[in-house]
Amino acid sequence: MTGKSTQLFSTWYCPFGQRSWIALLEKGVDFEIVETDPYNKTSEFLAISPRGLVPTLVHNGKSVYESFVINEYIEEAWPQQPKLMPSDPYDRAQARIWVDFIGKKIVPQFYHVLQSQEKGHQKEAKDRFLDGLRVFTSAMSSTEVPYFFGKDFGLVDIAFIPFALRFNILVHYRDFSLPSNGSFDRLKVWMDACKSRPSVIPTVAPRDKMIDMYKRYADNTCKSEIAEATRKRAPFP
Amino acid sequence: MTGKSTQLFSTWYCPFGQRSWIALLEKGVDFEIVETDPYNKTSEFLAISPRGLVPTLVHNGKSVYESFVINEYIEEAWPQQPKLMPSDPYDRAQARIWVDFIGKKIVPQFYHVLQSQEKGHQKEAKDRFLDGLRVFTSAMSSTEVPYFFGKDFGLVDIAFIPFALRFNILVHYRDFSLPSNGSFDRLKVWMDACKSRPSVIPTVAPRDKMIDMYKRYADNTCKSEIAEATRKRAPFP
Repeated sequence: MTGKSTQLFSTWYCPFGQRSWIALLEKGVDFEIVETDPYNKTSEFLAISPRGLVPTLVHNGKSVYESFVINEYIEEAWPQQPKLMPSDPYDRAQARIWVDFIGKKIVPQFYHVLQSQEKGHQKEAKDRFLDGLRVFTSAMSSTEVPYFFGKDFGLVDIAFIPFALRFNILVHYRDFSLPSNGSFDRLKVWMDACKSRPSVIPTVAPRDKMIDMYKRYADNTCKSEIAEATRKRAPFP
Repeated sequence: MTGKSTQLFSTWYCPFGQRSWIALLEKGVDFEIVETDPYNKTSEFLAISPRGLVPTLVHNGKSVYESFVINEYIEEAWPQQPKLMPSDPYDRAQARIWVDFIGKKIVPQFYHVLQSQEKGHQKEAKDRFLDGLRVFTSAMSSTEVPYFFGKDFGLVDIAFIPFALRFNILVHYRDFSLPSNGSFDRLKVWMDACKSRPSVIPTVAPRDKMIDMYKRYADNTCKSEIAEATRKRAPFP
């Protein structure tokens, strides 16, 4: 570790850590990523993050974890532009509702598609994943593009970007595609804008490396806490 | 419905609705409770709350749902005293981490204790419930009493109060008790203070009525979404 006062403990392929990475880049924070093996948690790391959760953000010696909590913290601790949350209380509530929706109705389904081994289960999981995507897409601003709230990029977009970027893993292992019936056109506009965002580009790992890493999920041999929860259909840690 | 501009759609026994009820009373908001049967969702209610979630808060014609989102909304839409969140970003992150912890590591375990039918499963569920309570208790301020953050009452306290008030249901149906070895002394101080709080007292239903209502959970015949999720060990809706 160097002496930077802001450190993000995460690992290169972690979609949850990527959320906080993007938020820190948006805010122009001077930080470093401390590559952290979630399969081999050192006592140093557990002293910083008692529940051993990746990502953990350390800022001026204090630790924050849970990616949605970290990202609200980043917004509040670095209140400069760009604002990543709307200012109106109702819009802020909407942002939190949709970040929560992504966590409950899209992310677990992503892992179910990937870890399901039997064709019928894969089909069911894909259907539920598409249901979640459809609801999320229809909640996006219909009057303004490209982001969830229209012109302003923020925490709802950031919560979903890492999983949108991992569609190609589902394409590779599960022959996944978005139906081309027009109901996902708004999502495609959203994806194109997010992928070319300067805060997103540096967080994207090479496709081959990513596909290789996710093989253990596609084989359902992965031992991560997320993979174990997916197998048991249990809540995520 | 009358014409009040703030309406909480909930039902008298709902612990999640009770969270928002307490927060509204803390803020001195002029509101009414609209008793809403979660087993028989009317088209009027679904027009207000598309995902049919109880509680739903309607304020000036706009709907907010998910109790933790509603409560942050109440804090922001009625920014007057008492403040229910700390002002420092790190403390705010801690508040969100512990509200999330209650939702993940205490509330589901409460329902597992109640719905488990076999003695061995009840014992396992009680142990996990106590593990969660122990971690939560040890996170409470050790320098100040009585509330989670010490002198200031807020959203972390509110998130747990409805379940602390339902300990007597576990006592009645599952012979539950807090170990008297001293490790829960801080929690007892917390409970005494919360139970006598003016915003909490009016939200407490008569003990007999509550015990009667929770019989269907104790018999594991309840058809609520929470009960179904508990049976499947699935994430809560």
